[in-house]
Parts: sequence; C-alpha cells; structure tokens
Amino acid sequence: MTTNGLLSNDRLFPPDPTERAIARRLYEQVRALPIVSPHGHTDPAWFANDEPFPDPAQLLIIPDHYIFRMLYSQGISLESLGVPGRKGNTGERDPRKIWRLFAENWYLFRGTPSRMWLTHALNQVFGISERLTPVSADRIYDRIAECLRLPEYRPRALFEKFGIEVLATTESPLDPLAHHQKIRESGWSGRVITAYRPDPVVDPEYDGFRDNVAQLGQITGEDTTNWKGYLNALANRRHYFASFGATSTDHGHPTAATFSLSLSECESLFRKAIQGQLAGPEAERFRGQMLTEMARMSIDDGLVMQIHPGSYRDHNPSVYQGFGKDKGADIPTRTDYVRALKPLLERFGNDPRLSLIVFTLDETTYSRELAPLAGHYPAMKVGPAWWFFDSPEGMRRYRESVTETAGFYNTVGFNDDTRAFLSIPARHDVARRVDCAFLSKWVAEHRLDEDDAAELAVDLAYNLAKRAYKL
Amino acid sequence: MTTNGLLSNDRLFPPDPTERAIARRLYEQVRALPIVSPHGHTDPAWFANDEPFPDPAQLLIIPDHYIFRMLYSQGISLESLGVPGRKGNTGERDPRKIWRLFAENWYLFRGTPSRMWLTHALNQVFGISERLTPVSADRIYDRIAECLRLPEYRPRALFEKFGIEVLATTESPLDPLAHHQKIRESGWSGRVITAYRPDPVVDPEYDGFRDNVAQLGQITGEDTTNWKGYLNALANRRHYFASFGATSTDHGHPTAATFSLSLSECESLFRKAIQGQLAGPEAERFRGQMLTEMARMSIDDGLVMQIHPGSYRDHNPSVYQGFGKDKGADIPTRTDYVRALKPLLERFGNDPRLSLIVFTLDETTYSRELAPLAGHYPAMKVGPAWWFFDSPEGMRRYRESVTETAGFYNTVGFNDDTRAFLSIPARHDVARRVDCAFLSKWVAEHRLDEDDAAELAVDLAYNLAKRAYKL
Amino acid sequence: MTTNGLLSNDRLFPPDPTERAIARRLYEQVRALPIVSPHGHTDPAWFANDEPFPDPAQLLIIPDHYIFRMLYSQGISLESLGVPGRKGNTGERDPRKIWRLFAENWYLFRGTPSRMWLTHALNQVFGISERLTPVSADRIYDRIAECLRLPEYRPRALFEKFGIEVLATTESPLDPLAHHQKIRESGWSGRVITAYRPDPVVDPEYDGFRDNVAQLGQITGEDTTNWKGYLNALANRRHYFASFGATSTDHGHPTAATFSLSLSECESLFRKAIQGQLAGPEAERFRGQMLTEMARMSIDDGLVMQIHPGSYRDHNPSVYQGFGKDKGADIPTRTDYVRALKPLLERFGNDPRLSLIVFTLDETTYSRELAPLAGHYPAMKVGPAWWFFDSPEGMRRYRESVTETAGFYNTVGFNDDTRAFLSIPARHDVARRVDCAFLSKWVAEHRLDEDDAAELAVDLAYNLAKRAYKL
Repeated sequence: MTTNGLLSNDRLFPPDPTERAIARRLYEQVRALPIVSPHGHTDPAWFANDEPFPDPAQLLIIPDHYIFRMLYSQGISLESLGVPGRKGNTGERDPRKIWRLFAENWYLFRGTPSRMWLTHALNQVFGISERLTPVSADRIYDRIAECLRLPEYRPRALFEKFGIEVLATTESPLDPLAHHQKIRESGWSGRVITAYRPDPVVDPEYDGFRDNVAQLGQITGEDTTNWKGYLNALANRRHYFASFGATSTDHGHPTAATFSLSLSECESLFRKAIQGQLAGPEAERFRGQMLTEMARMSIDDGLVMQIHPGSYRDHNPSVYQGFGKDKGADIPTRTDYVRALKPLLERFGNDPRLSLIVFTLDETTYSRELAPLAGHYPAMKVGPAWWFFDSPEGMRRYRESVTETAGFYNTVGFNDDTRAFLSIPARHDVARRVDCAFLSKWVAEHRLDEDDAAELAVDLAYNLAKRAYKL
Repeated sequence: MTTNGLLSNDRLFPPDPTERAIARRLYEQVRALPIVSPHGHTDPAWFANDEPFPDPAQLLIIPDHYIFRMLYSQGISLESLGVPGRKGNTGERDPRKIWRLFAENWYLFRGTPSRMWLTHALNQVFGISERLTPVSADRIYDRIAECLRLPEYRPRALFEKFGIEVLATTESPLDPLAHHQKIRESGWSGRVITAYRPDPVVDPEYDGFRDNVAQLGQITGEDTTNWKGYLNALANRRHYFASFGATSTDHGHPTAATFSLSLSECESLFRKAIQGQLAGPEAERFRGQMLTEMARMSIDDGLVMQIHPGSYRDHNPSVYQGFGKDKGADIPTRTDYVRALKPLLERFGNDPRLSLIVFTLDETTYSRELAPLAGHYPAMKVGPAWWFFDSPEGMRRYRESVTETAGFYNTVGFNDDTRAFLSIPARHDVARRVDCAFLSKWVAEHRLDEDDAAELAVDLAYNLAKRAYKL
Repeated sequence: MTTNGLLSNDRLFPPDPTERAIARRLYEQVRALPIVSPHGHTDPAWFANDEPFPDPAQLLIIPDHYIFRMLYSQGISLESLGVPGRKGNTGERDPRKIWRLFAENWYLFRGTPSRMWLTHALNQVFGISERLTPVSADRIYDRIAECLRLPEYRPRALFEKFGIEVLATTESPLDPLAHHQKIRESGWSGRVITAYRPDPVVDPEYDGFRDNVAQLGQITGEDTTNWKGYLNALANRRHYFASFGATSTDHGHPTAATFSLSLSECESLFRKAIQGQLAGPEAERFRGQMLTEMARMSIDDGLVMQIHPGSYRDHNPSVYQGFGKDKGADIPTRTDYVRALKPLLERFGNDPRLSLIVFTLDETTYSRELAPLAGHYPAMKVGPAWWFFDSPEGMRRYRESVTETAGFYNTVGFNDDTRAFLSIPARHDVARRVDCAFLSKWVAEHRLDEDDAAELAVDLAYNLAKRAYKL
C-alpha cells in the first residue's frame, strides 16, 4: 500500500481494519476533488509573471516560517538559513548549503505537519522516492533544481496540475492589485482572486497607520481625515476588491473584541487615531468598532467576513528588529469570544445576510465558546483548525470538540492559509484524510451511517468551502 | 448486530474487536438497570395529570432547545418551528408542517447527540425502523401521532416502561409544589421528587427578585425584609421541599464565586438587594455569600448541594426579547473554581456531612481544577459531563480528564438534566454505553481488571447517583 | 502475556494488534535502559545512611500525598493514616492498621497512576503476585515487612537494582548538603546529585523569608542586607551546589511571571522584602525579577533552569494548620506564559547558552503557549507532563498537543518528580510504555517511519533527559 516507498496510501488512516476500510472508501470519494483555497498568502506575482521558482531553498525553506522557526528553536541562526533581514540577506547565499543544513536537521521535524507536507511535495511534485538525509540531500537538491527549470514547474502549470479551482490571496486595501490585473488581462484561465485585509488601515497600532489612512484617501478620492469619509473610503476599496473577485474580508486583530459605539465616540476615537494618539484600551475600542463597521458593510456588499484573532505578533523583539514580521515568533494567546463578539452579534448576528467566519488559536474555545455560538447565531460559522492546529491532531481535536454542538454544517471546510505554494495539495490531502479518518471512526461506532458520511466527506472537502465563501 | 435497521446493538462501542467484546460484556451488566434521574427539568404536571402528549411537534421539537437552536443557526426562524414567543405562538401552528420542516433539515444533526437521542426514541418508543427523511416524514409523523393517543403512551405509562426508579424535577422555592402534591395524593407508585432551585430568590439580578423575596415572606410567614427572616424563610422552604422528597438543591449562578462575609456586610448587601440597588460586583458578592449559606443549611438538613455555574444566559437579546429564557442562546464561559470555591471550602469543605456536587461548562477545569479539588476535599464531588458535554465525546473527555486524579468514586454517576422526557432512556443508554466503551479500553490496555470494570460499570450507571444524591 | 498474574507485559499498549506489535518492538529497545532521574524529591539521607526502611506504611503510604489525598477525599482522616501533624503523629501508630485501612479502600484508586505504580512496586520489588484486598492485606504486609529487613532492600541496593544512572534530589540554598557530602565521602558509586531550589530565599512571601536571607548571608559571608551582596550570595550557593553535582535549578513560583526591572527598582523592592513589607503585586514583581536574575546566572554558570509554576499551594487552611505543607492540598491554576515569560525571553531567550525548561499544570497551555514558545526560542524547552499529568492520559495529551508544533526535540524526556522511592522504576516504566504506545500509533498511521520511532523511543526514554540536564 505504498507509493514508491515514501508515502503510504493509507497514511493518516486508523490502523483498525474496520475503520481503515471505511476511511479508504470515503477518501476515494474526495481524493481527486478540485482544490478550493479560499484563504491564503501565496504571492499573486507568481501567477502574474509565471516565472520559474529560483532554487530549492528559496522555494521550500526561506519563505516558510514553519520550517525555519523549528530550526531556529534548536539554535540554528536565521542568517545561516538565508532568511533575509531588514537590510536584505546578510547571511548564507548558497542555496545548496542552506539545503544541506536543512537536511542535517530534518529529524527535528519528525511528527510535525511540515515534514508531512514537504514529503508529499517531494514525492508528488518532484517524484522523489528516497528519504531526505544528509546523504541524499545533494541528489534531492539536484532533482528539484532540475525540475524548476522545466516549463511544467512554472507557477501556472503547477496551479493546474494541483487541480486548484480557485485560490484566494490576501491584500491590503492599499494594494493596487496590479498582479491580479495582470493575471486577469493575461487571458489565463486560472482563478486567482484577492481578499480584503484592512488591518493596516483599521488598526491604529499598525505600523504606519496614519500614513496608511492618508494614502487610502488618495487612492479613493475620499476625505479620510473625517470618520464619514474614512468609512466611505473603506467601502470603496471593498468594492474595488470585489471587482477583482474578492468574496471575503479578513481581520487579524489581536483579540476578538467588537464594540458598538456612539457616533460621537467613533468620531472622537478616529480623530485621535489619525493624530497617532490612540493606544491601549482606546485602540482596542477603535479596532473593535471597526469589526462591527465591517460587518455592517458585509451586509451591504455581501463580502464574507473572517476574524482571525488571538496571535501575539512578533513576540521576540530581537528577531523582529533583525528580520521583520512573520518570522515564526507569533505566539497564540488565550482568547475570549463570548463577551468579545457580543456587541457585533447583538447587532448583526441574527441577520442571515451576514456570513461571519471565526477562527481561533485557543483550542479551549472550540467546545466552550465557538461551537455554542455558531450552533445558535444564524450569521456565525466556525473556521477550520488554523495555523498551529492545521495538523492531524489539531484537526481531530477540532472535529471532536466542535461537531457535537455545532454539527458539521456550521463549519466551513478547509483553509490552507499558506505562503508555501507547494504545500497546498499536501495540506488539502492531509485535511481530507484526517476528515475521512474521523468519519470512519464514527461510522464504525455506528454514530453515523456510511452514506451520510460519504456525503459529509464531500461537503467537508469541497462544498462547504464553496458555499461559505460564496465561490 | 442491528435492531431493525435503525439502531445498532454495538453503537458507541469501540471498533477494535478486543475492546468491543469487553464493552459488550460490561454493557450487559448495566443495560437493564433502573434509571436514576437525580437532576432534570421535566414537567411534573405530566405525571400529575397524566394526559396524552398532544402531537409529535409539541412532544419532540417545540420544547427542545437542543433541536431548535441548531435549526435557528442555519437560518430557520423560531416562528416557523412553532416556538412560542412572549405573546404566545404567533408562528406556525400546524404540527405536521413543523415536523416536515424538521425532517428536511434532519441532516444538520448528523453527529450530534440530539440525532442519537431522537433516533433512539423513534425506534425504542415508537417502533420506527426507517430513517427520518423528507420522504418518510409524514409516515413517521402519523405513527407517532397514532401512538400518542394510546394509553401506554401517557406519561405515567412511559415512566414505568422506561424503568425509571426515581425522577427529580426542579422547582423554585416559590412553587407551591401542587403537581407533586397531586402525584403523591394520586396513589401512583412512580417516584417523582422535586429539587430546590433558589436562584429566583437568592440572585439579586434575577427578574423580579424583590417581588420574589416578598412572596417568599408571604409563603413562609417569615419577615423577609431582614437578613435573619430571609434566611429562616429559605430554610423553611428547604424543609417543605424535603417533605416532597427533595434530596438536593441546585444553583445556576453565572460563576462559582462563593464568599464568607461578615454579618454586617451580609445585612447591608441584603438591604440593598431588596431595594433593587444591588448589581455588578456587589450582586456577585451577595450570590456568592448565598452559596455559602446554602452549604451551611445543607449541613443542617442534609440536602445535597449542586452548583452549575458558567453559563452566560440569554446571550442574544433579540431572541430573549421575542421568546424569553431557555431558547438555545445560553453560552458557556470560562470559569474559575480554585479561587471561587475557596471561601465555601474553607468553612465546610472538610465536613463530610456536606455533599457538594460541582458541574462545569468549561472543560479545561476538569483536570486542572475540579478533579484536584474533588480528589482532596471530603465534601466535594465532580458532577457529570453536562449540557453541551452530555455527548459521547464530551463524556469521553470527562472520564479521561477526571479519573486519573479524582478516581471514579469522587464522581456521581449520570444526570440527564433534560426537559425532553423521551430522551431520558436514550440519554442514560448513551451514558452507559460510553462508560462501558471507556472502561473496555482501559481493560484492553491492562489498566483495569475486568472484574473491577464490571463493578465500576454498575457503580457509574446506578450506585453512584443513588449514593451521591441520597436516593 | 502476564507476569505472575498481577502485571501484564502488554500493559498500556494499544489493543489494536498492528499498533501493539509495533509498541512491543519499540519498548524492547527501551525497557532496560538505565534510569535518568533529573528532578525529584527523594530524601538524600536514605542514600547517605543506607538504613532499612522501617515498615510498609512508612515506606508506601504515610509520605505519599498522592495516596493519602485520595483517601482523605473520601472522608478518611489523615490521623487514621498516621500522617504526622505539626506536633508529630498524634494519630494511628500501628503500621499494620494503617495498611489494612488502605487495603480496604484500595478500590478508590482504580484507574489512577498511584494504583499502577504501587502494583508495579509490589510485584517487581517485592515479588507479590496477588491483588491487594482486605483479605490479602496482612499477607502482603508481612511479605513487605520481611523484605525490608533484608540487605537487598536497603536504599543503595534498591538504587542499584533499579538501574538508576543518576538521581537528583532538591535542596534549598540554605541546606548544608551534609547528606550529599556523606554520600560522596562514603565511596559508594551511586550518582546522587542535588538541585538548587531557591524559593525560600527569593520568594518574599515564603515562610521565614527574612530569616532565610539573613542565614544565606551567614552561610556565604556575603552582606545580604543589600541587593548586590544578596545576588552574590545566591551565585555563591549555586557554585556550592554545582560542586555537589547539581546541574540544574528549580523554581516553584505561583505564576510564570518574569520581570526585567531597573536596578533602582530591584534595590527598593529588595529593601522592602527584607523588611517584611513586600506582598501582593510587589512580591510578584520581586519573584519575577529573581527568575530573570537566575536566568542571567545560568548563562554564567551553566546550570539548567526549571520553572514549575501554577500551583495554588496549601489551598485548604485547616489541613495546612494541622499538618503543614505538601499534604495533597495544592491545586493547579490557570497559568499564562506568553506575557509572563516575555521579559525573561526578551533578554535571554535567544541565547543558546541558556537552557530553560518550563513545566505546567494547565494543559491548555501545551498547544497554545508552550509548544509555540519552545518551537521558536532557542533557550526554551517544554518540561514533561507533570504531577497530576504524570499519568497515561496526561502523557498522551501532552504528546498529542506539543509534538506537532514543537517536535520531540524541544522536549526533555521524563521527570519522575517523586518523593516515593519505590515508584521511580514504575513511573519510568509507565512513561516508556506510554511513549512507545504513542509512537506505535503514529507509525501504524504512517506518520512516522518505524526506524525513526525506534530512535525517538530511546531519545525520549534516555538521551533527551541526559542532554537537557547536562548529565
């Protein structure tokens, strides 16, 4: 039951023969379904320009914070991995040396999703069937490098090979969406859409907030020095994003706090914000009010709303100072939803025109808060197991904790949420397998009928994401 | 191994053949044990009047917030389900239409306990052996409606058929217990007892608190305008409830806070409370003091004390305004026990005359707080997996998290805690099966001897509840 | 597959035949590895004096708070178990009666680790092959008592029999380490080392703090009335401990709070502390600053640093007043690490010379906080499942929650952390079995290759502890 020695066809399936047989049957229904990727962070320039990926290290290691954070945690410097600092790459420049260093430390990833995803990519994308070791490192490097020069390894060709039906990237409202325009004008049939992530212009503590808001005014022709013009500008850019296929917004606030403030408080907070005088609890109130405003706009323009709270960004100041954001130093925090979301839900939670997808990095909230809320409010759904929990155990705990209270239909399928293009098929495959394994257990325990489970498997792998994200 | 196509005899048992064989043997010991239901919310009028249940929708859908909350979460209005509003039922009045709407959306319940319980009732109570679908909906409706007209489907007959040894309802101290009196005077042998739930007269933020306390004075002949008379009145009603078989009290406070305040603070808080001037932290102090007073009275009169904290009641104001309490909008919250219970435990926790059963909606407290507390204090026990966690996964997590620290004998068996009469045998059956499945795994892993497990299975299904609730 | 009827050779292995076969193969690699015990609370006097243990009750019951807390929780007084009070043992003095009382209540321990450990000791150390019951109690008592008179049951002989390679005890900086000196001078080859636990001299709320600091000055010849002299004295004792083999420090603070305060604030807090005027938030700041100071000293002297926060010590005042500390009334509390550790990690978290091992009693932090922090910071590792979680389910949840984010190599192997000498081989055996069971599941699910798992099994059982603790 193995594919050329590196990947078992039964990976992630339960060892019990009854369950495994069911899991195989369910998986057969979903294995080859198209990939719907409604939320992620791939670079639209890849698909706009369709240039070859430069080398194995730049493709697989340097941009992947899942990979280099683990190596860093074991004392391997970011410089030695070629991770560019704020002043560019001042460290290792030889991709082969980086690759070798990685191969020597590959054992550190045993049992991690990164190992599973990369193994999948090596095998399924590059046809490699030997394990990565210090001995095989050079051979594997050469094989990948060779492939990357071929036309079938260009971004668009891989997109098609991966069976991606639709892929969303994430952009700031300040982004002109030039790459998306170029994709559209190219006549290429691949569906790459954007998503609207307004953190830089709605979070007063975001780097450059004042300038960002000013720039937002310039782009939209609205007067963003007053509250009304500012809201108009945000709505204006939402429409612009929707015209490039966006069906959703995304909000990466530190907490899930929402507020429903008076007009005068909104105006006064906004004035202070654009004077750079908003911080702490007042900044929190402003951010929270902006989530409620975004919900209101979603009811107008139909964009699905995603809230991704609970990450303490850039916890390590010396890494941040040296290398900037998204360098593996974002740490989850305890998160409240019950009180935090109440102001927004009071106003819009009963309105079925709103589709609010809520994520968490605090697993304790699955059964205590998110499933009970989503199992009641018509507007709310629970987002999939996210980030550190995009993993077999993370997904299993998610299903076990959410399903009994919220059912399957208050969830929204899978998000890969990745910057690592080659991990997309691997991640969706892991999610499909884990869901089939989960379902197979409940079928074997007579908690689900197998025909229901087969329908559910397809819903979880494909339909729910399309429906929830209006794709 | 199936019963007429709808229920497998092996449901909820592990698929592994070794474990399943053990689970079957253990279950055989407990399958037919009488039902002890020490905590619930069925209507004593059913047993007092013994009138037929009116129709399938009024029996199975309209009163069950587990059912209509899920439908509501998917955009189905409460009106269309016939859920009565504050001004009566202003929506759908045709029970057959409600039933059809339910049947169309039955797929939403896949994997939920509600689906398991209702399937059990359809099959075991009404002899239905086909799945509920839009196609079978009318046939099943007719079958249930037909049964409900028969004498063997009257409440008392079902009570006996279900093998209920004792059933507790829950009443306010202001309740005259007329239904319980009628039951007693009827000469019927069924044991239906009450439980004392004083929230309306001890929580200053409860709707109508001031009037409630005044009424308490009238009922008892005590002067409830002063602290001493108020305590006397509460004790007086406890005795009255005990005379109707009550063996327990129940406390649904928002938190587990307890206090041990000076007499003068008690008096001053009480004065403010009956003037309607107690809110926020002061109301919390008063409620917390009342838990400690209740513990003191329990030592006097022997009533078992239950604390059920951690629900944010009526989270959705528009549902509350339209439809009132208990409409599926109560959401669990993070709950502390370690500091909260300390004042009460300091005073009474070492007194084995007190039996304090503590429940939670915050699963993180099982292993961190409740099992360590119950594994030390003689007075305290951990209540069973409750409400959203009265489910196979919820119960499994409970056993896995509680047992290693508190053992089995600091727990108290199962509570069905239900308003849905027909779910009682289903819920107990699920609990018995899940416990047998749990035990079978530990036996198969040589962590328990099978003879010990057999004894435990009976204790968990029957003896512990009788002992803990003094039944 | 049973050893003389009491212990199965397959205990704790998964029942599924595929998994079980893998688990057996993995376990065969680690079964007989030497025991590395880097953290515990055995009494060094045992090994210094090598006198016989007095009787079964004093060996197995009276000093084990896991045992007597469970009995106490079921209404059995500490006096009747011979637990000494502050004024000595005023209760039962007949060890045989204590043993009989224990045997009568042995059923309470079903499913607990204590039962597993004690059964292991009875069988493997004393060759007992019948279950402990009221009937067998006297026979088993006699057998143990008889053994204890033999030379091969003296502490040093057992140490050797158990295959202990190294055992750390824990001492206060005020301890002269006379027992360790005696062990060293005895010429015995057993490696018993100390560990530096400075709580009594760095926690201003510790009983006798002022006197302790004064005594610290006398011992070291430093002037501990000023901040600089105080730090010198602490460093001085660290060197002294290191000279007795200590490779680690240990810190049992109520929280994980760390601070990085100005010199003037340090000096002013210290002044207030030694005047007995530091409490509440200021005491917390002082303790937190001392953790940061300890980290700084660890970089100087190489001692590994352990933080064990989150226990609410002596929750039950009447037990504390009657019997003192460590009497089973310590209760875990919700614990934050993300904000708490930040000041320390900002200063030293990127320094690979620091080895900081962090434990928790709040399992919610495994996946949300500890694994993400340890999976990023070079200095930090996650300690093993601790105290109430040193149990099969506790260890399973630990591996499932930590591994996918932090991998195996940011963990540090097993700690027995015990006062109960005879439980040491039992505890290590349980940990090895649970890890092999865990690995076997991932191998059977094709998430790990079996050769990798075999290497991991040895790392988890032996290498990681040696490496992390520099043993």
